[in-house]
Amino acid sequence: MPSGFEAFDALVRSRATTLVEELKELIRLPTVSAQETGIDETASAVLDRARRAGLDAKAERVEGGPPTIVGETGAGEKTLLVYDHYDVQPPDPLEEWQTPPFEPTEREGYLYGRGVSDNKGNLMARLQALELYREAFGSLPLRVRVLFEGEEEIGSHHLAAFVERYADRIRADGCIWEAGYRDAAGRPTISLGLKGIAYFDLTLRAIAKDAHSSMATILPNAAWRLTWALASLKNERDEITVDGFMEHVREPTASDLALLEALPYDEGEMQRLHGVRAFVRGLSGTALKVKHFLEPTCTICGLTSGYSGMGSKTVLPAAASAKLDFRLVPDLTPTLVRDLLRAHLDRRGFTDIEIVSHHGELPSRWPADTAVAKASVAACRAAYGTDPVVYPLMAGSGPMAQVCDTLGIPVVGFGSGNAGSANHAPNENIAIGDYLDHIRAFGRFLHVFGGRSL
Amino acid sequence: MPSGFEAFDALVRSRATTLVEELKELIRLPTVSAQETGIDETASAVLDRARRAGLDAKAERVEGGPPTIVGETGAGEKTLLVYDHYDVQPPDPLEEWQTPPFEPTEREGYLYGRGVSDNKGNLMARLQALELYREAFGSLPLRVRVLFEGEEEIGSHHLAAFVERYADRIRADGCIWEAGYRDAAGRPTISLGLKGIAYFDLTLRAIAKDAHSSMATILPNAAWRLTWALASLKNERDEITVDGFMEHVREPTASDLALLEALPYDEGEMQRLHGVRAFVRGLSGTALKVKHFLEPTCTICGLTSGYSGMGSKTVLPAAASAKLDFRLVPDLTPTLVRDLLRAHLDRRGFTDIEIVSHHGELPSRWPADTAVAKASVAACRAAYGTDPVVYPLMAGSGPMAQVCDTLGIPVVGFGSGNAGSANHAPNENIAIGDYLDHIRAFGRFLHVFGGRSL
Repeated sequence: MPSGFEAFDALVRSRATTLVEELKELIRLPTVSAQETGIDETASAVLDRARRAGLDAKAERVEGGPPTIVGETGAGEKTLLVYDHYDVQPPDPLEEWQTPPFEPTEREGYLYGRGVSDNKGNLMARLQALELYREAFGSLPLRVRVLFEGEEEIGSHHLAAFVERYADRIRADGCIWEAGYRDAAGRPTISLGLKGIAYFDLTLRAIAKDAHSSMATILPNAAWRLTWALASLKNERDEITVDGFMEHVREPTASDLALLEALPYDEGEMQRLHGVRAFVRGLSGTALKVKHFLEPTCTICGLTSGYSGMGSKTVLPAAASAKLDFRLVPDLTPTLVRDLLRAHLDRRGFTDIEIVSHHGELPSRWPADTAVAKASVAACRAAYGTDPVVYPLMAGSGPMAQVCDTLGIPVVGFGSGNAGSANHAPNENIAIGDYLDHIRAFGRFLHVFGGRSL
Repeated sequence: MPSGFEAFDALVRSRATTLVEELKELIRLPTVSAQETGIDETASAVLDRARRAGLDAKAERVEGGPPTIVGETGAGEKTLLVYDHYDVQPPDPLEEWQTPPFEPTEREGYLYGRGVSDNKGNLMARLQALELYREAFGSLPLRVRVLFEGEEEIGSHHLAAFVERYADRIRADGCIWEAGYRDAAGRPTISLGLKGIAYFDLTLRAIAKDAHSSMATILPNAAWRLTWALASLKNERDEITVDGFMEHVREPTASDLALLEALPYDEGEMQRLHGVRAFVRGLSGTALKVKHFLEPTCTICGLTSGYSGMGSKTVLPAAASAKLDFRLVPDLTPTLVRDLLRAHLDRRGFTDIEIVSHHGELPSRWPADTAVAKASVAACRAAYGTDPVVYPLMAGSGPMAQVCDTLGIPVVGFGSGNAGSANHAPNENIAIGDYLDHIRAFGRFLHVFGGRSL
């Protein structure tokens, strides 16, 4: 009889079909939070599944928010929090899916469907890993708590209130965040945090209504005013010039630089993928990685003014707007960025530009030497037979700070995605092998974080 | 029995209903050149009407062009060319018309319908004036030629070729151009030329396809590149900074300044109309008029990039485009502006911005002391009982240079429009009184330009 992880891995192998079938069942529920479909039904299915995995779990909610599953199981010195969300992005554009988004389909070793990667796959894999760990080892070496929310894809608007209300059932010594991916070269990756985000609409109206462009001699033009205002925010060297902004960005430390130097980054592949011959400023090597992983952004996501059709229309546009997205690294916050932006524009006479705040999240960044970080590296090394790639921050954003920074829980992210998982896009997918490997890696992570040796 | 202009004016008065009915018949034809509707039918109606007015007229065309009516009548030392166009703008948005655009309707002394002001009204009024002049005076004191084109509203693409082929039937000592308007205070206006125009699409693609905005750290952003390029073309003082551009703009002469000082311009009314509290640079008085009438423009007519919907989408836009309209004064030309713009962008590294030229017209500006200018001032003064307002250049554009500069024909514009005629817009209108007054003024203009005294 095999024992320990030999037994655990044998269970994963022998139950593979059932494990994947269970995920498919969850994928069939169209849990689109933006469209308020399938939320209660999915929350209830997830709650049942958590209970079957041995969790003492409940669906709780704060006023106005969706059902949020909290639960716990096991005992030990350490407590691990597992964060996932059961809602998914809308499946549009539907016509670009090769098979329907809510009919999970296997093709050439991959499973396609909305949410397989983001994030129902990891949610299910982790519950299954708990169950199999108990079967292989008898009991868990630690306490495991879960927090499964239902509105991550629309901004987690009630999560902060939920964390405040249910802090005692969420607190932990470490957290595993929703996702992680094999990189383009197939290496497992671990992330130690997420950038924050501040998203704004900038809008202005310079005249009452569109005028004939012959009046451009003497009437103000909203599109020009917006252009001048935007040009004052970032220069052609791609340096953010919002007054005072860069003062809040921490310099990389020696250990940051060491982490980044060791981090493989396939520049040629990235350039090929995006159809560019060079990165901004012609950067490469560690300088490129520092900018990508540790620096903030100021991005024009959209520009709208006047006529956008075919041919010519000689119009002086009354109104103009831009959508601006800042990715935030410590110590930038959405509120700080908004205040800096307002003051910057006012100082230059752009008091007529209105700023409307949309999505905002704080950055969340954790050291490489926490217990969860060390456990995840050891677990991945053992499960994948190779050293994982450790990212100091993911370039994306999420509500990590609302949970982990608020409660002081060190966090890591790793999971079953791949570099082409197409989250938020048509034909979202995971490799079935990666799904089973995440169960294997997560089992080892429980083991190590629980204080046992591999 | 009254004689001379007493008789002429009596005819206009007594025939008023018939004169307006004839215009309505022409308005009922939906001559939308952009949609290629009603062109042949209208050309044929206009040809018939010109012949009934005594013109030896024909519909001619150059390859690919619409029927263009040329004709002549009368004899004398001087030859006058009458330029009008029989095509109209599309009537969209239809739902904003109070009565259907091609069902001419009278309301409170105004006639509503597509083309009543731009430009079927003046075309018909001038033919009617020729007829009534002959009836009142026996014969014309000069030779009158007409040039009625059918594609002015889509750019007069065949007019230059037409003018070259039929120059001998177009040449004249003076020209009256299509339009003119009572200003907001009700004063008749005369213009001595039109600004030219150069219209461009600026487009660029910085990456292969839209990317996630977290990649903004290292990938170029088309919207930013366009913003920086545009900001280099005009500064916040509204000064055009395209390299070398302003060197081609003539300084106003002493007589320009005298003309503009005498020109009434109701700044308060203009500000109220457009909902602004100040003009660009806080200009007023003669400096404002110099900028409006004698300076070029560089206008962003449209900006398009990335996401323009509600809320937030965290996208790094692959492409961006702007529509740019330059209004040209002597000695700027569309070709020159395109060359300057290309060199300006290239010099700053914006070689990836593609420039596509749309509509282009040369400016056409004529002195205040030509025979047509003097005759039009005298005719308007006599017809309206007040001094007309003389504009050195209209701020708008048209194919005037293709006719008048090519053949060296001094030109003026006056007509039956008003400050609220809504050309190109819903509820286009003229006052019926202004229509009849234009017949009266044009009769006097024929008289004076033909060498007779009022």
